Amino acid sequence: MSSYAIGVDLGGTNLRIAAVNESGKLLAKIELATKVKQGREHVVDELCCATKALIQEMKGKASVLCGIGVGVPGLIDMESGRLVESPNLPGWSDYDVKGDIEKRLGTTVILDNDANVAALGEQWLGAGRNSKSMCMYTLGTGVGGGLILDGNLWRGWNGMAGELGHCNVEPDGHPCNCGSRGCLEQYASATAVVRLAREAIAAGGAGTELLRIPDSELSSRVIYEFAMKGDKVAQSVFDRVGRALGLAIGNMVNAVNIPVFVIGGGASNAWDAFAPALFDELRKRSYIYRDTTAEDGSGIAGRKRTTVVTRASLGGEGGLYGAARLPMLSQA
Amino acid sequence: MSSYAIGVDLGGTNLRIAAVNESGKLLAKIELATKVKQGREHVVDELCCATKALIQEMKGKASVLCGIGVGVPGLIDMESGRLVESPNLPGWSDYDVKGDIEKRLGTTVILDNDANVAALGEQWLGAGRNSKSMCMYTLGTGVGGGLILDGNLWRGWNGMAGELGHCNVEPDGHPCNCGSRGCLEQYASATAVVRLAREAIAAGGAGTELLRIPDSELSSRVIYEFAMKGDKVAQSVFDRVGRALGLAIGNMVNAVNIPVFVIGGGASNAWDAFAPALFDELRKRSYIYRDTTAEDGSGIAGRKRTTVVTRASLGGEGGLYGAARLPMLSQA
Repeated sequence: MSSYAIGVDLGGTNLRIAAVNESGKLLAKIELATKVKQGREHVVDELCCATKALIQEMKGKASVLCGIGVGVPGLIDMESGRLVESPNLPGWSDYDVKGDIEKRLGTTVILDNDANVAALGEQWLGAGRNSKSMCMYTLGTGVGGGLILDGNLWRGWNGMAGELGHCNVEPDGHPCNCGSRGCLEQYASATAVVRLAREAIAAGGAGTELLRIPDSELSSRVIYEFAMKGDKVAQSVFDRVGRALGLAIGNMVNAVNIPVFVIGGGASNAWDAFAPALFDELRKRSYIYRDTTAEDGSGIAGRKRTTVVTRASLGGEGGLYGAARLPMLSQA
Repeated sequence: MSSYAIGVDLGGTNLRIAAVNESGKLLAKIELATKVKQGREHVVDELCCATKALIQEMKGKASVLCGIGVGVPGLIDMESGRLVESPNLPGWSDYDVKGDIEKRLGTTVILDNDANVAALGEQWLGAGRNSKSMCMYTLGTGVGGGLILDGNLWRGWNGMAGELGHCNVEPDGHPCNCGSRGCLEQYASATAVVRLAREAIAAGGAGTELLRIPDSELSSRVIYEFAMKGDKVAQSVFDRVGRALGLAIGNMVNAVNIPVFVIGGGASNAWDAFAPALFDELRKRSYIYRDTTAEDGSGIAGRKRTTVVTRASLGGEGGLYGAARLPMLSQA
């Protein structure tokens, strides 16, 4: 009998649950709003009810449930299953989300953070599907990261690997909530795009049409649209985003020599605006990165192969598929 | 019958060959000077003659040869076995060192760069022996690196992983031969220590006893001795070394969450002078690093465990043992 997994993508805005088979085919899906204001008990209750309903629905379909994977935004203590902190789920800090879901469902689940499951989805079915190793940056309110090595999530020794948003790109740069300065997420998140634009406007912003936009309407998307229309200040903001990503990716190429880097999340929609600076910086920064556009395309060691840096291809669905992938990998 | 491996550590100064058994016991050893000036043919000829002599010597000892591993300084194209470039072996660039050794010995060998084999040695028998994953920085003329994940060398997709000396610590910093600026090796190599001291002296160097040392006698070791005697300028040089290492290690903790970082190479003898700044910077930079000296020792997720950053414990022997380990791992 064929088997399937349940993937749960618990976001700050949407709660989605899907049944996915081992070939990556979506069999059924439930989409709800995440009613964060009604408290975590309510949200987890809805999550579990919908999951049970989906399992019930699948019972008629002659398919065996192989497990349940859940993607949650925030820093998770993998050993205890507790959510350490989650900017998108206020009030959920130090909450045993894994234990609570398991108690309500009466079965074990595999929990991981949203950036890790998004990476897993892209490596399984998306932009990284031709490579066993991959690194993903998710550009949202912050910058999340996920590292897939040899086909499996690399969680590191205490489950907290892939915090790529806190890799440094500017030692004396903008202060970060983590206590450091100049973390990647201070230059490459949607939040950073708006801050960088405000800084440019405050510094004079000569000639920018952004001056006409009320501050409350400034968003990563609006600034991107201005950049695409040729606004030099808006473009300079995305040049900074690209340089930060290029430096960070260059470090990962030098240290871990990963073949595929995938960039997703809402702010990755501005790819056209930041990609040129990203590749320019990456070529400068990485000792061993070579691409087919470099000189004769042969690279430092006479190779024709290329390190790939590309956009995510599953959009918002990556996390849902990746969550379903979690139990499949744990069984392998 | 017990088995053993031959490890060859080909350095710019010394050429060492050892027979090592599977428990890491040194059974026999040959040490020669590397006669770089007599050309690569001569050096490889001596290497192969000594290797054959050692194998002959072992024949009387009822032990089976499981393979030969060779550590070579420089950037190696793992697919072809060619040495791409090697600052310590002038004239060896684009040389098929693996093929040449194999032709002369009449058998296959496993080649890797010196920083990778040093890491392998430390993980097998040295400072990283209690951990399956480890990251090593070798501070010499440059800064080499090696990454061990789950007990094996992580070479990356084209064999060039672990170029930790070219990870960035200062985006607009000192120019590096690789074409970038502000690479770790511009701040943490023995060469960098001397340059940083010269810069401090040229900038006035008020009150430093280093002014009395003829420029030609300035070395990482001399500057370390002055730092240990309380010379503030000499100490400031090692503060810079420590901060650069702390930032670089912080990035690796955030991205790959490795449990053990080992620092070796000649310049690591100045550990006492640079370690305080290293740990201070690492605590600031890493989102997920916690040590037992932090606040209550419990860390961000209520953990008692610690990320370890420590000195290499095998000294110059790490590369020799690591080279012998190469064929043992490839058989496993």
